[in-house]
Amino acid sequence: MAPYKEVRAEILSIGDEILYGQIVDTNSHWISQELDKIGVRVVRRSTIGDNRESILEAFGNAEKRADIILMTGGLGPTNDDLTKPLLAEYFNCEIALVPEALEAVRNFFEKRGRELTPLNRLQAHLPTKCTYIPNELGTAPGMWFHEKGKIWMSMPGVPHEMKKLMSDHVIPKIKEVFPLPHIYHKVIKTVGIGESWLSELIKDWENKLPNHIKLAYLPSLGQVKLRLTGFGDDMNSLEDEVEKEIQKVKPLIDKYIYGYNKETLEEAVGRLLKLNKKKVAFAESCTGGYISHLITTIPGSSDYFQGGLIPYHNVFKNRLLEVDDKILKEKGAVSEETVVLMAENVRKMFDADFGLASSGIAGPGGGWAEKPVGTVWIACAQKGKTFTKKLQLTQDRLLNIQLTGVAVLNMLRQSIEGKTE
Amino acid sequence: MAPYKEVRAEILSIGDEILYGQIVDTNSHWISQELDKIGVRVVRRSTIGDNRESILEAFGNAEKRADIILMTGGLGPTNDDLTKPLLAEYFNCEIALVPEALEAVRNFFEKRGRELTPLNRLQAHLPTKCTYIPNELGTAPGMWFHEKGKIWMSMPGVPHEMKKLMSDHVIPKIKEVFPLPHIYHKVIKTVGIGESWLSELIKDWENKLPNHIKLAYLPSLGQVKLRLTGFGDDMNSLEDEVEKEIQKVKPLIDKYIYGYNKETLEEAVGRLLKLNKKKVAFAESCTGGYISHLITTIPGSSDYFQGGLIPYHNVFKNRLLEVDDKILKEKGAVSEETVVLMAENVRKMFDADFGLASSGIAGPGGGWAEKPVGTVWIACAQKGKTFTKKLQLTQDRLLNIQLTGVAVLNMLRQSIEGKTE
Repeated sequence: MAPYKEVRAEILSIGDEILYGQIVDTNSHWISQELDKIGVRVVRRSTIGDNRESILEAFGNAEKRADIILMTGGLGPTNDDLTKPLLAEYFNCEIALVPEALEAVRNFFEKRGRELTPLNRLQAHLPTKCTYIPNELGTAPGMWFHEKGKIWMSMPGVPHEMKKLMSDHVIPKIKEVFPLPHIYHKVIKTVGIGESWLSELIKDWENKLPNHIKLAYLPSLGQVKLRLTGFGDDMNSLEDEVEKEIQKVKPLIDKYIYGYNKETLEEAVGRLLKLNKKKVAFAESCTGGYISHLITTIPGSSDYFQGGLIPYHNVFKNRLLEVDDKILKEKGAVSEETVVLMAENVRKMFDADFGLASSGIAGPGGGWAEKPVGTVWIACAQKGKTFTKKLQLTQDRLLNIQLTGVAVLNMLRQSIEGKTE
Repeated sequence: MAPYKEVRAEILSIGDEILYGQIVDTNSHWISQELDKIGVRVVRRSTIGDNRESILEAFGNAEKRADIILMTGGLGPTNDDLTKPLLAEYFNCEIALVPEALEAVRNFFEKRGRELTPLNRLQAHLPTKCTYIPNELGTAPGMWFHEKGKIWMSMPGVPHEMKKLMSDHVIPKIKEVFPLPHIYHKVIKTVGIGESWLSELIKDWENKLPNHIKLAYLPSLGQVKLRLTGFGDDMNSLEDEVEKEIQKVKPLIDKYIYGYNKETLEEAVGRLLKLNKKKVAFAESCTGGYISHLITTIPGSSDYFQGGLIPYHNVFKNRLLEVDDKILKEKGAVSEETVVLMAENVRKMFDADFGLASSGIAGPGGGWAEKPVGTVWIACAQKGKTFTKKLQLTQDRLLNIQLTGVAVLNMLRQSIEGKTE
């Protein structure tokens, strides 16, 4: 389809602290995603220690494999940090003061009321063959080399500094240098259905997808993302084509779709509550505050989140949410009857339109034959009607909490949309 | 000090889905940490695509650099997965059925009530030069090669399968094959003090540490871990030496230490509550359930966690926790007076010994000159006395929630131990 030569990239992360497991390298994964979005193929990722021979060897091998070499780390002002002198050595050039870079470092410190040390001043000395790329969020500048048709870019290892350099400078410059295919991504976010069932529902559509539109299944914790990627020459027609495919697949799985692209389930639920001017409250037993936490991570959630109660023992389910002692004794705390009362009464307690409740055996202890670990009841109460659902989850406590959270938010979504099963 | 030859390892993760940023490779970091613990030096980590030439080239380079090559991924039964045939090619051997492996795969499916497909059966065919390592949690076996003095180990990419293979088989076998230095690690967990202040307090002790005991600062979200690593010949004397150093440094920073090694702050608080037979409840406004969630992730937390209330609006702070309307109007929801009443009354509501409360402006909206985003009040109430603290945190909503969580748990820890500031 595309008349483009494949553009290949290699990502190098530099630092003993990564190899020894002292810090997690989250940069490489993020860079992979950003390059994938613009149609650059990552062919290798390597982590190298703070060691001259290793770094030079990695430079040499990367140059053989890739058109673009992006590296992070090894840029601090101390002696351990070798990236800058080794880039100068590799490209056979001097290191010299760049007045613009010195100005930037000086400003950086001035703004923070700190003095420029001689060590900091060294950060403005750069290999003469590089283009200086300003780092607005830190003191180690980016360095861009365009040598023998290949691009080399060195960035600091601090994630937010690297991300800003990538987004503001590196991605736009890569697009200038290399003819890349137009790529259009769209992600369909689904919840409440497993990957294999989902693929069964959409297999006929999937088999008929044109060659230049690819589908990927990305499952995670109770959810599956469907990522459609179109490649082509004309961005407008490409976007049209992908959107048309989405309109075709949508009716097949409509009740599982909660959003698109980056929207999370808690954001989608918040959007729906806001749109419908509805308010929500939670009574959480086995989830212990997790669902309220998810909801309140979203800015502006006070518009629709009224509050929550965590009655972790029967006495509080009874005293604060009026669950009859008789029910607690005869049916148990993990029962349909209990979650119905919890949901209905937390709704009233917090003047909400929707009241949701969870009660279950998160584990690892507390299970028995009739109600093994992983047994969870959830409920969603509105004025005049209440839905319930029994879940049979896993042996893992944290996973049970998280999967219950997803199920409760999905139940709320379905109730707001009037699409309860 | 140690008469040992350094043992070097390389970690290979195999799979296009990692290079394209579709899944995060958490395995390499975990393996790095495990190897670091036993004194094996990781010299390189590489991620390679599902491509014959790349994988063979990586094998060749790894063999030059390392004594141990650990690889994950590329072991599924489909055609994309190349690790097994390429290992056979690299070591110049056949692939043949291993009856023991077939038995294991058959059992795996039987237990789950599923039938063995011909594709699954292929997973029991292994390169003849490898030692079969059973994978109890999945269907792709581990393969161990000991060729020309070097160790090669291939493991599935599924994290919990890989971790079990590493802990049960690979780490013990590596210790058998290579003479490794004795290493003794101990981590001191601190909270409530920044890295630079901490280093100031302990610098004299740090400067006097013997050469074979190393100190690393590992900061994270409101906490700093101090990792002491001792290298030597005799495990007993090594342990003694490290423990002696800990006894020396302890008095200097005692009030910041909450635990050792893997214990988390929420586990430490749970341990202290249990030990002192005390019970706790939380009234969470700006933290929105996060603290209760942290506490209830710990198995057995129902022994000391009574419950919580999330009064996300003034009307509920007033109605459910008896915070006077006058206080809410004159002092505001984010005030010392409000959190004191919240903490005292949630304590009573849940029959607890300790009641803790948070109220603040998590952001990004809602701040003003007098109370900017990041202003948080927290309180801890016991019978007859209540402590409060004002925090001035960041512009980031999630970070403010998390840092408040750490501060509240630390306040609870100090109150139980009677070490309030």
